[in-house]
Formats: sequence, structure tokens, C-alpha cells
Amino acid sequence: MRIPILKLHDCLLVSIQWELDDQTALQFQEDLLNKIHETNAKGVVIDITSIDFIDSFIAKVLGDVINMSTLMGAKVVITGIQPAVAITLIELGIGLEDVLTALDLEKGLEKLQQELGD
Amino acid sequence: MRIPILKLHDCLLVSIQWELDDQTALQFQEDLLNKIHETNAKGVVIDITSIDFIDSFIAKVLGDVINMSTLMGAKVVITGIQPAVAITLIELGIGLEDVLTALDLEKGLEKLQQELGD
Repeated sequence: MRIPILKLHDCLLVSIQWELDDQTALQFQEDLLNKIHETNAKGVVIDITSIDFIDSFIAKVLGDVINMSTLMGAKVVITGIQPAVAITLIELGIGLEDVLTALDLEKGLEKLQQELGD
Repeated sequence: MRIPILKLHDCLLVSIQWELDDQTALQFQEDLLNKIHETNAKGVVIDITSIDFIDSFIAKVLGDVINMSTLMGAKVVITGIQPAVAITLIELGIGLEDVLTALDLEKGLEKLQQELGD
């Protein structure tokens, strides 16, 4: 299984709607970085509204992919972080300090466009 | 595997990026109709840019899901139909007469918003 990555203008949209297994998470990481490279995307919105639990491996992959995307020059917005996911991320020390967050995909995209407009 | 369906304002976005097997196609049909019902979406954009071949079963499911969505009151735009896919659809008599089409996701979304604005 691979997670589709949608291109909308200069942003990429990803919605993770089912729990990821390790293989899918790693595949997603690779696919997203390739897609950023291919499309010259300036921003990425990752919506994880439907994820209400993540394990430490997935949390690490998510933290990594955000840092890697930032390194490649794309701004990342994570939307829909659920309470349990926030707890896991903080407990694991994945603070996502430089990452924008928003409530849902629409608000995430708005926030990203504001940022990119600056 | 299930295909994620993204909600953006009053539209749903779907990008099918890998060949569907029969089970996934039927699951997608069910998921999309449920999502239209849940979100009261007025429009759906289905991007099939990455699909360069469809068999008769998938073509039928695609034709059906478009008709079903229309029946539920959502306008459907199909984007990125490849030559081989267009050939298959027409040869199977799935003419998609009432369906809007566009080149890519951005243009599809624009077209949909124009239509919904009327």
C-alpha cells in the first residue's frame, strides 16, 4: 500500500486515513521526498485527523519526514493531531518545534498559503 | 488498501495513483458515497492521471461511482484521463456523458468551483 500524494498548485496534500504499518511509513517518506523534488513543491500539508494512535516507530518516521522536507525547502503543516498522538510525540521527544500545525486540512492549507505569501 | 478521500471546503478530492484491484475499487465506491453523505459534499474531483490502463471491471466501477455520486447530488469531475483509459471507457460504452473532465487536479477543482458557483 502506498499513500497518494496530491499536488495542488505549489503545495502537496497528504491525508493519512488509516494506521500505517512500518513498511508503508517508510515508503511514504521516500515517496514524499521524491514528490517534493519532482514538483518543486514549496509546502506540504499532512493531515492525520484519522490517526488516533501512533507507535514510536511511526512517530519517528513522521518526525524525520518533516525534518527532511524542511531541509529540502518545503514548509510542512501537520493538521488534525489527536490528543493521544500529541502525547506520544511529546513523550518521545518529537516536539515538532518548527512545524506549523492546524486543526484541519482547509485551515492547514490556508496557513501554508499565508506563510508562503510572506 | 483503501484510497484516502480528502475534504477541501465543500469538495472531495481523490487521487488514484496506483492500479486498483477489484476489492479496492469496490471499497473506494462505498467509501466515496459514505463520505459524500457524511460531509454533504457538493462536488468530487477524481484524479486518475497515474492510471494508464484500466480493465473492464474497474471501468464499470468508475462509471458506476460517478453515476451514484451524481444521483446523490454531487458534481463529479474526472481529471487526467490517459489515452488508453479513454479508449477503454468508450469501447466499453462508458461514455461519461454528463461528467466534467479536466487535465489535472488544479484545473478540475477550478472547473468544479465554477460549476458550483453558478
